[in-house]
Amino acid sequence: MGILAVPLDLERLRVVLVGTRNPLNIGAAARAMSNFGFTRLRVVNPYDVAFREAKSAVGAAALLASADEVRSVADAVADCTLVVGTTAVGHRELQHPLRRLEYGARLIRRAMGAGNVALLFGSEKFGLSNDDLSHCHWLMRIPTRDAHGTMNLGQAVALCLYEMVRDPRAARKTPVPLKPASEAERERFTSMLLDALRASGYVNPRTATSTTQKVRRLVRRLNLPARDAEVWQGMMKQILWKLDYPGRGDDQG
Amino acid sequence: MGILAVPLDLERLRVVLVGTRNPLNIGAAARAMSNFGFTRLRVVNPYDVAFREAKSAVGAAALLASADEVRSVADAVADCTLVVGTTAVGHRELQHPLRRLEYGARLIRRAMGAGNVALLFGSEKFGLSNDDLSHCHWLMRIPTRDAHGTMNLGQAVALCLYEMVRDPRAARKTPVPLKPASEAERERFTSMLLDALRASGYVNPRTATSTTQKVRRLVRRLNLPARDAEVWQGMMKQILWKLDYPGRGDDQG
Repeated sequence: MGILAVPLDLERLRVVLVGTRNPLNIGAAARAMSNFGFTRLRVVNPYDVAFREAKSAVGAAALLASADEVRSVADAVADCTLVVGTTAVGHRELQHPLRRLEYGARLIRRAMGAGNVALLFGSEKFGLSNDDLSHCHWLMRIPTRDAHGTMNLGQAVALCLYEMVRDPRAARKTPVPLKPASEAERERFTSMLLDALRASGYVNPRTATSTTQKVRRLVRRLNLPARDAEVWQGMMKQILWKLDYPGRGDDQG
Repeated sequence: MGILAVPLDLERLRVVLVGTRNPLNIGAAARAMSNFGFTRLRVVNPYDVAFREAKSAVGAAALLASADEVRSVADAVADCTLVVGTTAVGHRELQHPLRRLEYGARLIRRAMGAGNVALLFGSEKFGLSNDDLSHCHWLMRIPTRDAHGTMNLGQAVALCLYEMVRDPRAARKTPVPLKPASEAERERFTSMLLDALRASGYVNPRTATSTTQKVRRLVRRLNLPARDAEVWQGMMKQILWKLDYPGRGDDQG
């Protein structure tokens, strides 16, 4: 597990698109790679037009320009020590171990500590062929519903790359709360609110004490942030002024 | 944390697309929802054509047909107890707490135990407006690179939904290895391989003992699976036969 502690060398992952038909999908794959810092794209026998048109993908032009176009899966994976295929569930008899993305991505990260890894995505219509799959050591699936398993290609690439760079520690992080208002600020606001409630006739003189306590507790439950305390006081001040001088214009000055 | 143990009611999440322009993105969002089992899509002021054209999204037609089209963000989030906006990093002065997807998704899951949650996605070009953001309790960002932070809308929706349904336990799962071949099968294969090496002249008689040991260790490092042992033996048998009777046809019979 020590390997996971060193920074991941994202250059070691080859994203391999096999027989992709739709230029938007090549572009979307390149864009997701760029979003997450991956750089090595290989396209195997793309439809000519698809690859040319893809080169306009938003923000990923350089990545697409440096993409390798190769003739076979064997060429695309030759410099890799691990070859992983992606698949939708249950669409064929699988001859390979099948791993969920959450676990598979961890194995890929580990393998990237030792060498290059190829991650294969098949065509939109047929996925990876049996011949493509024969180059793979194992297969990875995204945990979609059985009833609707096949994903859009660009989305599938994005999910796989995200799972590789997501930070499990980030999920455990405790929130950094907004700096709360001081008790003095809270009490100043409480006091102005009570003034306004009295001026408006909300407070019954017979139960004034319990109302004060109730309002104080209400304000304490608000989680008033320090940076908002002054604004709240300003609003209350204006309301109070209008309650006290209902006939005047809106300007206190 | 007990809430996380009960199954997540995916109906409680409202995916809200605000001012989406591209029908492909509405379709892609709907498809990702369907992939992961979410059902409640709301579109706020989409471009008319975009929403009509999106209805052909692969495998998500029913979901799109039942999508709510509303006039304002306020309408889209009215039945929710938590409203979360998505944003690319650093494109404006943020007035809200900003949480990474890994952590934000956990908070959303927890909130879905108590009520409905709205997750807002802005338009492709401008994201969420300041007015849209004023409805949000906090913001969530996908951990993209600073240098290329803005994601494709359909991919961003897919990532957020995936993070909500991904199973952290799946990442910790130990692999279910293929049943390994028995030692007898390994030794049978070793023996046939040695026969073939002898027949081919690979084995030097003076070092035969050490070669045998070397080959035995080589085979032990292969992780030969039980289900493949017989095939390997069959292949070796054929090779041996050809080595022994080079003049004959390919058929042993």
